[in-house]
Amino acid sequence: MSPSPARLDVIAIGNAIVDVMAPASEEDVTRLGLAKGGMTLIDTEQAHNLYQAMGPAREISGGSAANTLAGLAALGAKCAFIGQVADDQLGEVFAHDIRAGGIDFATPARGEDPATARCLIFVTPDGQRTMNTYLGASQYLPASALDEATIASASVLYLEGYLWDPEEPRRAMRRAIEAARGAGRQVAFTLSDGFVIARHGDDFRALIEQGQIDILFANEHELAALTGIEDFHEGIAQLAAKVPTLVVTRSENGAHAVSHGEHVSVSAEPVAQVIDTTGAGDLFAAGFLFGHVRGRSLAECLRLGAICAAEVISHYGARPEADLAALVAEKVG
Amino acid sequence: MSPSPARLDVIAIGNAIVDVMAPASEEDVTRLGLAKGGMTLIDTEQAHNLYQAMGPAREISGGSAANTLAGLAALGAKCAFIGQVADDQLGEVFAHDIRAGGIDFATPARGEDPATARCLIFVTPDGQRTMNTYLGASQYLPASALDEATIASASVLYLEGYLWDPEEPRRAMRRAIEAARGAGRQVAFTLSDGFVIARHGDDFRALIEQGQIDILFANEHELAALTGIEDFHEGIAQLAAKVPTLVVTRSENGAHAVSHGEHVSVSAEPVAQVIDTTGAGDLFAAGFLFGHVRGRSLAECLRLGAICAAEVISHYGARPEADLAALVAEKVG
Repeated sequence: MSPSPARLDVIAIGNAIVDVMAPASEEDVTRLGLAKGGMTLIDTEQAHNLYQAMGPAREISGGSAANTLAGLAALGAKCAFIGQVADDQLGEVFAHDIRAGGIDFATPARGEDPATARCLIFVTPDGQRTMNTYLGASQYLPASALDEATIASASVLYLEGYLWDPEEPRRAMRRAIEAARGAGRQVAFTLSDGFVIARHGDDFRALIEQGQIDILFANEHELAALTGIEDFHEGIAQLAAKVPTLVVTRSENGAHAVSHGEHVSVSAEPVAQVIDTTGAGDLFAAGFLFGHVRGRSLAECLRLGAICAAEVISHYGARPEADLAALVAEKVG
Repeated sequence: MSPSPARLDVIAIGNAIVDVMAPASEEDVTRLGLAKGGMTLIDTEQAHNLYQAMGPAREISGGSAANTLAGLAALGAKCAFIGQVADDQLGEVFAHDIRAGGIDFATPARGEDPATARCLIFVTPDGQRTMNTYLGASQYLPASALDEATIASASVLYLEGYLWDPEEPRRAMRRAIEAARGAGRQVAFTLSDGFVIARHGDDFRALIEQGQIDILFANEHELAALTGIEDFHEGIAQLAAKVPTLVVTRSENGAHAVSHGEHVSVSAEPVAQVIDTTGAGDLFAAGFLFGHVRGRSLAECLRLGAICAAEVISHYGARPEADLAALVAEKVG
């Protein structure tokens, strides 16, 4: 039996985070002992101390899967987001920005304590971002926040690996996978970061072996971490045998995808100046998934991903600023 | 008796506001009935409704005098700010950003209700900003928040006309003027907006007549509103007779200053693209005042103003992003 027509293109579950972004020098990153280019979880006290050490900042809504949805919605997809904010000003900011982007967001705020998640991002002159995440309310997303009927009504359920780490959201995501698959929908998953793979690689490998993941997003480091294989092409070959569609991003070296045996590579889209790489992978996923739900070829899906990633790294913040639909219409048609 | 050496270059009293900025179309501005290019005060309900009508936004600390100090501090001046935030997340954001800019800020937060001020700014494709300000906690700055010894220790006391409207800060600013003048310091004042002049023009004219204002900043509309004279040069001549230094900005037509009988004009500094004019006047004042406290010529003060204004209109947000000190060193030496 084929599933009923989808009401939504993509529903995502992810961290509900506001990014706090400031330029920083290489010396700042070294002096503060930050893991350059990576994502580190921090507690309340570390968040306080690190914020004090940060220069004047700007606040822009973020969160990996939420960024992906912002891109998808800007391209014209119908989307919904599930994620946990607190009942505070940053929670209002997050909820406003995601709804203002045209995305359904119905998860109720949770109370004031802990506060809405924020990510302190130090952006070095090379455009590289170093992220320090205070998860706050985000890690308490309960399984009861899921609306299984809504999940069943979306072509694709998109899950953020970052959110696999805390226990309650992990349970929620497992239930969401069941709901989506039970309704004959596809599940897309992004591995997010090496630390998540270090802690939950067994879970991810099991989901893959059981055929629960239809589309898997990874960067080349995450590919190596998950497969334990250093060689890029060997890693791809091993993993592609287990997921219907595998997409591996390689920063300035573009991306490679394998879908049902077909291999396609894409170059990175040229950018006048890389300002801030925050959200590059998230927007790549947005472009790719948009192509996927619109039935585009694998090569077109990759090209859409590359165009969206290029837009987001050419300015501060992980949400698109340009009119992505117009950009894509101009470049791909 | 000449005053003792100043510990601070500039101390300012102003609104403590976080800007909430989003791109908007001309149609949005018309449809929402906004006063394009102006500043409108809004209440809690209007703030709520207008925020709902706004696209995805970003939050960047603002406030007219606070923006000026951010520019001054970036240029290398020693500064302090007095302004009222609430004990909430946006208050933390404001306090962080001003302190991270190297500015002393000791005014205690006021409690949770009303919330920290915010300004909903719609930025049209022409770079023009349309501001809608919810004053919240900002209008409750009490005279008791003033540290008169600190005011007496600054070369210049800088006051924001916007803050003349609410009663408590007006009283505080009158006391601050006395403290500064009693210590032999200079008082600089910016007229801020036509609506403030409409409501408090008599106060401003009285302060000027009494010789309480040493440096007056206005744009050409404010000049006309204050003097009642439409002709630019006639208005300048009338007002310049009453203030030691008068600085009038004219957007893309540059600026004109008169100081102790000397007249100097400056062209606007070329900008590749005007992105967002928020903060143009504030940063012009920053450059000018920096030149002033460093004993530069009137022409140099104007040039510094023009350079700083050009930097801030070339990106989103009213706080400088480039290294202003380096920029000025390169262009003026």
